[in-house]
Amino acid sequence: MSGIFGCFDVDGNCDNVVRSAYYGIFSLQHRGQESAGIAVNNGGAFLCHKNDGLVADVFDDMTLSALQGTSAIAHCRGGSSGISGSDAIQPSVIKSRVGNIALTSDSVIMNDDALREELKGLGAIFQTNTDSEIILSLFSRNRIKTEDCEHAILETMKQIRGVYSMIFMTDNKLIGVRDPFGLRPLVLGRKGSFYFLSSETCALDAVDAEFVRDLEPGEVVSISRDKVTSVKLNGGAENKADGKVCLFEYVYVARPDSVIDRMSVFDSRYRAGLALAKEQPCDVDLVIGAPDSGNAAAEGFAQGLGVHYGAGLLKNRYVGRTFIKSTQTQRELAVKMKFAVLRTAIAGKRIAIVDDSLVRGTTTGHIISFLRANGAAEVHVRLASPPVRFGCCYGVNAAEEELPAATKSVDEIRDMIGADSLGYISLEALKESLSTIDCGVCSACFDGCFIAGRPDKSIDSVHKVTYS
Amino acid sequence: MSGIFGCFDVDGNCDNVVRSAYYGIFSLQHRGQESAGIAVNNGGAFLCHKNDGLVADVFDDMTLSALQGTSAIAHCRGGSSGISGSDAIQPSVIKSRVGNIALTSDSVIMNDDALREELKGLGAIFQTNTDSEIILSLFSRNRIKTEDCEHAILETMKQIRGVYSMIFMTDNKLIGVRDPFGLRPLVLGRKGSFYFLSSETCALDAVDAEFVRDLEPGEVVSISRDKVTSVKLNGGAENKADGKVCLFEYVYVARPDSVIDRMSVFDSRYRAGLALAKEQPCDVDLVIGAPDSGNAAAEGFAQGLGVHYGAGLLKNRYVGRTFIKSTQTQRELAVKMKFAVLRTAIAGKRIAIVDDSLVRGTTTGHIISFLRANGAAEVHVRLASPPVRFGCCYGVNAAEEELPAATKSVDEIRDMIGADSLGYISLEALKESLSTIDCGVCSACFDGCFIAGRPDKSIDSVHKVTYS
Amino acid sequence: MSGIFGCFDVDGNCDNVVRSAYYGIFSLQHRGQESAGIAVNNGGAFLCHKNDGLVADVFDDMTLSALQGTSAIAHCRGGSSGISGSDAIQPSVIKSRVGNIALTSDSVIMNDDALREELKGLGAIFQTNTDSEIILSLFSRNRIKTEDCEHAILETMKQIRGVYSMIFMTDNKLIGVRDPFGLRPLVLGRKGSFYFLSSETCALDAVDAEFVRDLEPGEVVSISRDKVTSVKLNGGAENKADGKVCLFEYVYVARPDSVIDRMSVFDSRYRAGLALAKEQPCDVDLVIGAPDSGNAAAEGFAQGLGVHYGAGLLKNRYVGRTFIKSTQTQRELAVKMKFAVLRTAIAGKRIAIVDDSLVRGTTTGHIISFLRANGAAEVHVRLASPPVRFGCCYGVNAAEEELPAATKSVDEIRDMIGADSLGYISLEALKESLSTIDCGVCSACFDGCFIAGRPDKSIDSVHKVTYS
Amino acid sequence: MSGIFGCFDVDGNCDNVVRSAYYGIFSLQHRGQESAGIAVNNGGAFLCHKNDGLVADVFDDMTLSALQGTSAIAHCRGGSSGISGSDAIQPSVIKSRVGNIALTSDSVIMNDDALREELKGLGAIFQTNTDSEIILSLFSRNRIKTEDCEHAILETMKQIRGVYSMIFMTDNKLIGVRDPFGLRPLVLGRKGSFYFLSSETCALDAVDAEFVRDLEPGEVVSISRDKVTSVKLNGGAENKADGKVCLFEYVYVARPDSVIDRMSVFDSRYRAGLALAKEQPCDVDLVIGAPDSGNAAAEGFAQGLGVHYGAGLLKNRYVGRTFIKSTQTQRELAVKMKFAVLRTAIAGKRIAIVDDSLVRGTTTGHIISFLRANGAAEVHVRLASPPVRFGCCYGVNAAEEELPAATKSVDEIRDMIGADSLGYISLEALKESLSTIDCGVCSACFDGCFIAGRPDKSIDSVHKVTYS
Repeated sequence: MSGIFGCFDVDGNCDNVVRSAYYGIFSLQHRGQESAGIAVNNGGAFLCHKNDGLVADVFDDMTLSALQGTSAIAHCRGGSSGISGSDAIQPSVIKSRVGNIALTSDSVIMNDDALREELKGLGAIFQTNTDSEIILSLFSRNRIKTEDCEHAILETMKQIRGVYSMIFMTDNKLIGVRDPFGLRPLVLGRKGSFYFLSSETCALDAVDAEFVRDLEPGEVVSISRDKVTSVKLNGGAENKADGKVCLFEYVYVARPDSVIDRMSVFDSRYRAGLALAKEQPCDVDLVIGAPDSGNAAAEGFAQGLGVHYGAGLLKNRYVGRTFIKSTQTQRELAVKMKFAVLRTAIAGKRIAIVDDSLVRGTTTGHIISFLRANGAAEVHVRLASPPVRFGCCYGVNAAEEELPAATKSVDEIRDMIGADSLGYISLEALKESLSTIDCGVCSACFDGCFIAGRPDKSIDSVHKVTYS
Repeated sequence: MSGIFGCFDVDGNCDNVVRSAYYGIFSLQHRGQESAGIAVNNGGAFLCHKNDGLVADVFDDMTLSALQGTSAIAHCRGGSSGISGSDAIQPSVIKSRVGNIALTSDSVIMNDDALREELKGLGAIFQTNTDSEIILSLFSRNRIKTEDCEHAILETMKQIRGVYSMIFMTDNKLIGVRDPFGLRPLVLGRKGSFYFLSSETCALDAVDAEFVRDLEPGEVVSISRDKVTSVKLNGGAENKADGKVCLFEYVYVARPDSVIDRMSVFDSRYRAGLALAKEQPCDVDLVIGAPDSGNAAAEGFAQGLGVHYGAGLLKNRYVGRTFIKSTQTQRELAVKMKFAVLRTAIAGKRIAIVDDSLVRGTTTGHIISFLRANGAAEVHVRLASPPVRFGCCYGVNAAEEELPAATKSVDEIRDMIGADSLGYISLEALKESLSTIDCGVCSACFDGCFIAGRPDKSIDSVHKVTYS
Repeated sequence: MSGIFGCFDVDGNCDNVVRSAYYGIFSLQHRGQESAGIAVNNGGAFLCHKNDGLVADVFDDMTLSALQGTSAIAHCRGGSSGISGSDAIQPSVIKSRVGNIALTSDSVIMNDDALREELKGLGAIFQTNTDSEIILSLFSRNRIKTEDCEHAILETMKQIRGVYSMIFMTDNKLIGVRDPFGLRPLVLGRKGSFYFLSSETCALDAVDAEFVRDLEPGEVVSISRDKVTSVKLNGGAENKADGKVCLFEYVYVARPDSVIDRMSVFDSRYRAGLALAKEQPCDVDLVIGAPDSGNAAAEGFAQGLGVHYGAGLLKNRYVGRTFIKSTQTQRELAVKMKFAVLRTAIAGKRIAIVDDSLVRGTTTGHIISFLRANGAAEVHVRLASPPVRFGCCYGVNAAEEELPAATKSVDEIRDMIGADSLGYISLEALKESLSTIDCGVCSACFDGCFIAGRPDKSIDSVHKVTYS
Repeated sequence: MSGIFGCFDVDGNCDNVVRSAYYGIFSLQHRGQESAGIAVNNGGAFLCHKNDGLVADVFDDMTLSALQGTSAIAHCRGGSSGISGSDAIQPSVIKSRVGNIALTSDSVIMNDDALREELKGLGAIFQTNTDSEIILSLFSRNRIKTEDCEHAILETMKQIRGVYSMIFMTDNKLIGVRDPFGLRPLVLGRKGSFYFLSSETCALDAVDAEFVRDLEPGEVVSISRDKVTSVKLNGGAENKADGKVCLFEYVYVARPDSVIDRMSVFDSRYRAGLALAKEQPCDVDLVIGAPDSGNAAAEGFAQGLGVHYGAGLLKNRYVGRTFIKSTQTQRELAVKMKFAVLRTAIAGKRIAIVDDSLVRGTTTGHIISFLRANGAAEVHVRLASPPVRFGCCYGVNAAEEELPAATKSVDEIRDMIGADSLGYISLEALKESLSTIDCGVCSACFDGCFIAGRPDKSIDSVHKVTYS
């Protein structure tokens, strides 16, 4: 997963453009904290700085000051770039027949290998293993045959099969693209003469911009100095309501203060917790969240049950950044360091712990034994999403064989993790928790309907879309 | 403030000693995150690695592997070391007539200038501005005239006036020291052949050690391969109950899962919240904590009022590490980035926000306007500690002129921060929240009784202790 | 200018391959010391490490150990890579339809802009401004239409107009290429099962390899596990004797212990000095070299005159790496730091200082005043190459307007630099100094015959070659 | 060995002070290239920056700009500082009863252990293993009992036994000190309102200063804003002519363009070469120097013999900085990389190679086989210093068991290194080569007269000096 952000000043000034981009990706780091980069358009020259590390480590004041531009795109990503230096980190910046192009994308391309081979057969060379290079190579060829960048992008969208949000920066435009199903979120914002494109609204709040609207599935929004235009790909979701935004954005990925397709992420989680209390009640003394992603649902669950909601486990805020584990003993100690347990708050009590989801189950198992070792009388687990039964290549990024819910019953999973009881919200209730959403959802990891196909399988016929 | 940690294997093995020290200070970083260091005793040779930065940045696997030893002391501290390199970062390692001595301390010495001048008058030279160098210089001279290290430490304690916890590592001992009033916490732990000394119990939990006991005020605990001994300074608190542990450890400094002098930090905060609900009730729809230090008291306050406790503000976990602010506009944006506000959770509601304390009041003011801007109908502030009226050099580290409570009434402060109402817990109720504590408390920042004196003033006559 | 080096073990082992590459470019750093890189073929996976800096700074033992491979290519280059990271540093590594290709080149392409535009028109994208990317893009397209890599390279050579030596590394070959005129040197060496390609023989000496032969102009030598083959471009120099190796390689660029096209570089310089003594004798007490590049000719000049040859100026071996100059005064001081003058050796004496060439003349002027200020009675300048009258884009890399000899007479230059007399060797004598050379020479910077054309001018008709 | 440099502007301005210090140590790096540091007096505050590495790597423009001061001292040194950071790198900066003191020294203290123990017995603590810390600790105690810094230094000189040059920087003075025998050189220079102290005159040339005079043995020169004063230690050399400057400074250590005690280093080497030609002639075709330290003597030797002097071996200027060697094979290759051999210049010739000295003999042996392998018909070795028979702790820093001349005859050494003949200059002739010197010399490494004693032996009674 990645966070992407773009900024364009229609007045053509450089003030605050790069700093807005910096604040933008700073606020999107929950989507990826391994590398960061910013590219700016400095009067036609494209400058780019990017590196492995947190945003605060990659950029300092001097670097930002050197990145003057009237438009900027920025990226943060999970997964490090390996031995070969900064080549694989985004934004990608190239020169083509129509000038400079920079690209930042949050994408998973299903037919990447086929496209790469096809392009190689036409003489293209590849310097990285990134999706960006494929997209830019396709775009560049399409651009020769099309009247403008927007149509070259539409042609490119017909060729790639996958889920993505992308921001292109050209010599005179900033162009946002949401995939035909709208699986990945992308929003348009504005403040004075500045336009913004962002993975999530929380980054608009960080730069004090107002939310304009979500991009529609398959939409290409193009910002230039004199106008903002929009075109849409035929063959994807016709209406926004037919879109399929990833349900896991609400469940886990997005920041709770973001609003995706008109639905507040925090509210969706809180409401899922309320619904969970109805579907899977339990008799406990205290409801706690699995920190921090389970907290919102836990609050709703406690409210629904009428039981006290409080802290029981706290996350060590210094962990998350790498720290050193080597021997087995030390690795077990390491688990203890990730969480602080409030012993006096839980000792002797019947505890319900609410988590956003159960993917592999390892951490949940550790937490349960940790709570018991610190005196919890009972530990009941409640999950604010249904059993994750299908390995999803779009987002969850787990293989099916790693997923207990793919093969085990709820009781078997309960025993595996050592809980006194285990309850999942139903998919229907989870979908109902999205009360104000104006888009459909993809729940492939729960129901197996992979609308954009899977890399190693043929596309599910039912969900197949026509890429003309 | 600093975190200190020591480890000693009475079996004389090197396995896990330095890694325990690493985990120890990793868990104490809430006490100081600007620099970190570890020194080990490697068969008489003392090795030390230290640098500016977070523990995870200062140490990597290779560095730890190079630091083999049978005992170790470690340090993390707030405040960077400046231009002159690593000299000022702890642990300090010296050679004296009786061999190697390493020291790590969490200290504020009141008579540091006088001691430094006195030592200079005897020919001593100083290479840093640290307390450690004074303490080691005094200790080294005292050691010449005393039979053992422990008595040299007692002599040193008679000369220094201040608050401190310290761990000395010598060629064959690990020695923990708590100041005569017990202002700073220090605990003894054990696991198998390992003894530990730590600022807080949370670090004992991190290394899976059992808590043995708090050091008593003025106590010197010495661990060697064949025995653990204890001596105590005359002239400090006679009994543990006469000690004066810093109340702010409970209010703000310590990690909630730590237990200091037999009292759980989380419980003390939760109970303070309960008491605050009795003393300063208010009619609201939602109680939220000022993240993260106000959360425990907020939970208790909500429980006391019988009102819903939930999230309203979340702290961005990537902030706290430096990030770039330059122009005024950007600085205001920066405030927005520190906190995520859950707009839908607070909009239209009457909110009570509970904070641990109000020192300067700037951040509280920002938070209130932030909540209002996002739709809060009313914002009531409740504080789980009394007005901070005295500039405390021991811990709070604020000058009196910065403290609104030093000169303003509660109503004036309420207006200053823009709250609908403002309520403080009383000092009596705060002290009562420490139900199981077995030590007295220092509440100098609230009542002005500075038992160890202040740097620029003569010692309060009432509280004067005889340093023979 | 760059140094390029390749290594291939026909036995298919990894031992010493990368270390040979390391030693190879270490010995070629006089050709470029700003960046360095090595790529290896590790069983089909291509690994690459490259960075700005000296070879000794870019690589350490750990990095080399990670670069295991059965073949390797390496590069060192003058000129830093700018803000965008390591993308522009060689070797370049790409994936094409026929697998991995790595390239390292010492090249100046005259028609680079035209080629880049042509490729862009076909949809190619460019991520850097390097020649390598153009060459790889052309090669990759040509490879689709040709039976093997060697013919794809020949096709590419027909498209590019310029001077170059190149080494390609493919999944199973190492291929060396010398431009149609042989302007840049490239040699083949061997030691046991190892084959080497190198810019100069000095790097073969460094790895203890025997010299096999110079590549011929327009030759493509291909090394695979079972054979070494050679093909040659039609349209360049038919015979080796028609080649045009750059005369400046002998005058200045190459290391004195290298042998290029059968002529020892040191001997050529020494012989030029002897000839200079005949053509431009002078009555002096001491002959010194302009350190270090004038030393060999100075030795010959002194021998020719029968005058004492000795040291007068020494070069500070720590300069050459950047050092700090800021104010005007300090910049003048900086000149003093570059050279140590042996005052007692020159005071009161008539000095002849021999330099390899006079390009801009600034340093020579500084040296003359420096010698006078330290007591030299007379300072006579002798140059072991003719007046540099034409801005050469192949190697000397100076614009015509910077060259005093383009517009000034010898007397005017003498006055400009403040010498008592000034004498140049004739072009005929310089060419005669190359007694054993088996190739022709390019003397464009002296006579203006640019055989491969100039970037902004049409190709000299006389010298035009047919690129079919 | 170290290089030390100091700068003091009597006009009290900051302009160019730190940059002069930078240029000063830049020019002294031949005395030590492992670490570098500069301390400045900034209106009473002492700022210091130091690190491992070359001067050009330790300092950049920003660092220098931050080091504003009206006086500065600087240091460069051989030998790295180990794991414990920058503590052991000079300058050392301390605070004492009389204010800030910074010290930079080029010293070997014989009685360091005894002094350290004595000081420890008085309560002193040591944070490093450096001489500086001992000297500063002694000085600081002495300063309490004396009227001024100069007398405190004299008292300190009575306590330390060894060889040294030192520069102290105090709040208002810059004080240069040369040891009682003048073994280490130290000179005073001046330019306008700037005074300089430097290990060698070459650094005065670098900052364009005029040489004022050498310090006398045992002299303390003190520069303040209103005067320059001098005091001298009783008990050392009474007159300058009784001093004992280290002969190895002329033979090897100093830069050839330096003048020590009125004798040009280059001239002394050249004259030694002339004398060597008389004492140890040989019948050869070419005389070459062992690069670079043998070149001056080789030039004189060739002149004396009337034989051609020329280049045969060149030193790779990129070696000297660490480069990687690992396997035995690679280590042998490494030797080849250090030197470029000019094969055509030496092939078939009888060669005399002149080196400054033969200490361990390993490199000389390698060079001889290298010359033979490249075709030299005969290789005769001539040495411009006598057999090094005594392990010298002052400078040469080799143990006696490493010295072939301690146990072997000249013939045996000749066979060991594989030369056709071997000839040493006599000690008498070497001393005579110092025609203009105004000081005596120490030739302990040749004759065993250790005037300042040796660390593990009692002082030679004959040479004992009275330290009152």
